[in-house]
Amino acid sequence: MIKKCIGVDIGGTTIKSGIFDVEGNLLKSWQIPTRKEDDGKYIIDDIAESIQTKLAVLGIPLEDVIGVGMGVPGPVLPDGFVEVCVNVGWKNIYAERELSKRLGGIPTKSNNDANVAALGEMWQGGGKGYSDLVMITLGTGVGCGIVIDQKIIGGRHGLAGEIGHIHVRNEEKEYCNCGGRGCLEQVASATGIVREAGRILKATDLPSKLRGKEEFSAKDVLDLAKLGDEACIRTMGIVGDYLGLTLFNMTLTIDPEVFVIGGGVSKAGSYLLDLIEKYYTGYCVISKNRPKLCLAKLGNDAGIYGAARLICG
Amino acid sequence: MIKKCIGVDIGGTTIKSGIFDVEGNLLKSWQIPTRKEDDGKYIIDDIAESIQTKLAVLGIPLEDVIGVGMGVPGPVLPDGFVEVCVNVGWKNIYAERELSKRLGGIPTKSNNDANVAALGEMWQGGGKGYSDLVMITLGTGVGCGIVIDQKIIGGRHGLAGEIGHIHVRNEEKEYCNCGGRGCLEQVASATGIVREAGRILKATDLPSKLRGKEEFSAKDVLDLAKLGDEACIRTMGIVGDYLGLTLFNMTLTIDPEVFVIGGGVSKAGSYLLDLIEKYYTGYCVISKNRPKLCLAKLGNDAGIYGAARLICG
Repeated sequence: MIKKCIGVDIGGTTIKSGIFDVEGNLLKSWQIPTRKEDDGKYIIDDIAESIQTKLAVLGIPLEDVIGVGMGVPGPVLPDGFVEVCVNVGWKNIYAERELSKRLGGIPTKSNNDANVAALGEMWQGGGKGYSDLVMITLGTGVGCGIVIDQKIIGGRHGLAGEIGHIHVRNEEKEYCNCGGRGCLEQVASATGIVREAGRILKATDLPSKLRGKEEFSAKDVLDLAKLGDEACIRTMGIVGDYLGLTLFNMTLTIDPEVFVIGGGVSKAGSYLLDLIEKYYTGYCVISKNRPKLCLAKLGNDAGIYGAARLICG
Repeated sequence: MIKKCIGVDIGGTTIKSGIFDVEGNLLKSWQIPTRKEDDGKYIIDDIAESIQTKLAVLGIPLEDVIGVGMGVPGPVLPDGFVEVCVNVGWKNIYAERELSKRLGGIPTKSNNDANVAALGEMWQGGGKGYSDLVMITLGTGVGCGIVIDQKIIGGRHGLAGEIGHIHVRNEEKEYCNCGGRGCLEQVASATGIVREAGRILKATDLPSKLRGKEEFSAKDVLDLAKLGDEACIRTMGIVGDYLGLTLFNMTLTIDPEVFVIGGGVSKAGSYLLDLIEKYYTGYCVISKNRPKLCLAKLGNDAGIYGAARLICG
């Protein structure tokens, strides 16, 4: 029988888990709520219990599972130590060791969730078939996972892939929640897109269906831009420019095979991809031979895929 | 007896070589001119012959040499293929295989010279003791080699570490020789520093000993800045700002343990290091726990050290 591996994606609200065969086929996935109370002390117990229950229901003995991987929403040191993970309340915990202890000493591994998602997209998603990949997640914030030679670049101080806070805009007056000013996230996240559109509406007379609306979302901006709304097109031009610049500068740093674009904003699909590619290409005068761009494919499942891949890679 | 390894650093004018023991002690170094005529077809022969001669003189049998590493001034693909290397005239050559053939099938390895220099600084230079290191070379251009987990990040399209052409300045009007505008190299290379100083002299009334001079060097600018020359201080403030920005953005990408600053400009020593650190720290509001900065130590020998390390690493 084909051996199994388990991937666990720990989020601030829910914990998603999946059982895979070692070839990367998802056999079963489920989720449980994240109990953040008491510094998240019940989380590992909950994960262990839910895995044992699910395996029992499916009739899979623990011996057939080669290990469990975990994606953690914060920095994880190379030895598995999590100093602090505000999203789930953890402080000073070796989460992977604790989980292993509760599952009969089974091999466990953990890594930051953005890195794990990149690994998942490499295994069975938009980056399938590649070994060097950068995944950019455009959601509430801007996240990034880097995989080189099939291995995660984790960084030495928990700062690798924190490209949401790369400085791109000198003239920015507002502060980012990191304390800096001019961060990529301030313009290219869902929140950033909304703010940028608001600025364009205020600063120009460009016609727009957004005018007069009290609230709108990044999705509204993208949907309207696709339909030709001038203020939204102008907004997305600025967003695309900063993303193209960032991809270009990353190309001249680590030069991966492919950039995989994911996260909620990437649901805008080929419109967004073409837009980023246009600006990226504009910066890339130095070489026509350069990393490709593609869309992520696994959506919210990237985390469980990548977490499982930590174990059976 | 301790085994030996040989490092060869191929430059556009001279080829430098060194014999090392496997612990990284340089036993003997020498150099020969680079014969670029006829598409550089004599270069590999020259290297092989000079190695054989030197070994004979030193009484070291070829059997005591575990291999030869080479730094090449252009992109080298993972299988050793060099498509084009304008600095020495090569086209479509497997340089390392050719060298091995001429030295009785001895193991050979090659890599880009900036990457190799980074490896050298990690082995016996400013980055000794570290495993994750970025070396920035400030010379005629701006080069960069990236080593993560003691392995070179070579990139997939020959673009890794090409940070001289990272886009940092939107308002730049002049073109860089890469065809782009606003490249880091246009301001932070030796050439860039001279140009920047010229601009400051023209645009301001700041007092300066450079006024009235027809020609001056980056060294002049740095020497005068140290002595309090106002136009030179202003110039180096701009240079330091762009370098600090670049190091910060690289920190949020790959987060190494240390940045090693080398190249001719780095002869300005702690003045330059403190300047870059000041701006780097200014950008780094996100975290106090971050990569260190230090000066390179091996100077022009970094290449032979790193080339040898390719073999005995």
